[in-house]
Amino acid sequence: MEPYSLIESKETYRGKIITVNMDTIMLPNGERTVREIVRRGGAAAVLPVDANGNIIFVRQYRHPARAFTLELPAGMLDEGEEPEACARRELEEETGMVAGEIRPFFKMYPTIGLCDETLHLFLASDLRQGTQHTDPDEFVEVERYSPEEAAAMIFDGRIMDGKTIAGVLAYLYIGRK
Amino acid sequence: MEPYSLIESKETYRGKIITVNMDTIMLPNGERTVREIVRRGGAAAVLPVDANGNIIFVRQYRHPARAFTLELPAGMLDEGEEPEACARRELEEETGMVAGEIRPFFKMYPTIGLCDETLHLFLASDLRQGTQHTDPDEFVEVERYSPEEAAAMIFDGRIMDGKTIAGVLAYLYIGRK
Repeated sequence: MEPYSLIESKETYRGKIITVNMDTIMLPNGERTVREIVRRGGAAAVLPVDANGNIIFVRQYRHPARAFTLELPAGMLDEGEEPEACARRELEEETGMVAGEIRPFFKMYPTIGLCDETLHLFLASDLRQGTQHTDPDEFVEVERYSPEEAAAMIFDGRIMDGKTIAGVLAYLYIGRK
Repeated sequence: MEPYSLIESKETYRGKIITVNMDTIMLPNGERTVREIVRRGGAAAVLPVDANGNIIFVRQYRHPARAFTLELPAGMLDEGEEPEACARRELEEETGMVAGEIRPFFKMYPTIGLCDETLHLFLASDLRQGTQHTDPDEFVEVERYSPEEAAAMIFDGRIMDGKTIAGVLAYLYIGRK
């Protein structure tokens, strides 16, 4: 048997937005180990840049952080939904903006040791006004900051969301190359 | 009652490394909603820079990604452990290096919509050789790359880990300011 082969997968929890599995895998030394893994599916986020070069963020209450946090628009893929379609949908739902141009930026595992979630980041530009329409239990404010202002907020702790930190710094990096 | 007050918290799963709660909270419109939240505790990661300006990474098998991934050294805080002590411990355990200098870099929530995990990133330098001693079920290889090589690996998909993407790009940003 190959190292890291999956020997057995047992679902130990089925919740509203996640399931948890206990997976038994084979180690290189021939022993077995059990890994607890959260299954959640895919997600998309979008870094929208307006005509003045500012990034459009959303601020919303996040219960896990017990705080109102500044983030890039994002959400989970609907069943069968392509990441780009999800990014476009979340952008319009959360900010009311429609992207004339959208392109893949990079992909990441937000919590690679625990969760199978993959997050697809996109860059959006050539924005025009559409219609904001959040879910009934979503209360979202839109805020705009320059990339440099956003970077300052990463290092002073005002931006704490991983995908937003990665996206803003990636945008600054490609702009300076 | 204040908006977003916690009305009720019910533990629905207790696993090996996580617990899951269903929390009922009050929305601004007076309605109640249930949020599923994964509780995991804190973590620390470290960006170690060697005398040649290269970043020291670890490569290991990550079951959620079904891949051998390149990452900054990191791990969960032990009970009562300070983030800096955890960063120093994980650095030596996983790479065998001891940091002469270590300082806080930034903090992030890797998965802010789902999980209460906070990750504390540190910058380490003035490195000297100690002793690598991984857990019995950890098989870790050490690799070194320049920050620019690492950035290229973010955009071509060879680096997929969120904390590593954020850390590398943050290091490039402060180096160019």
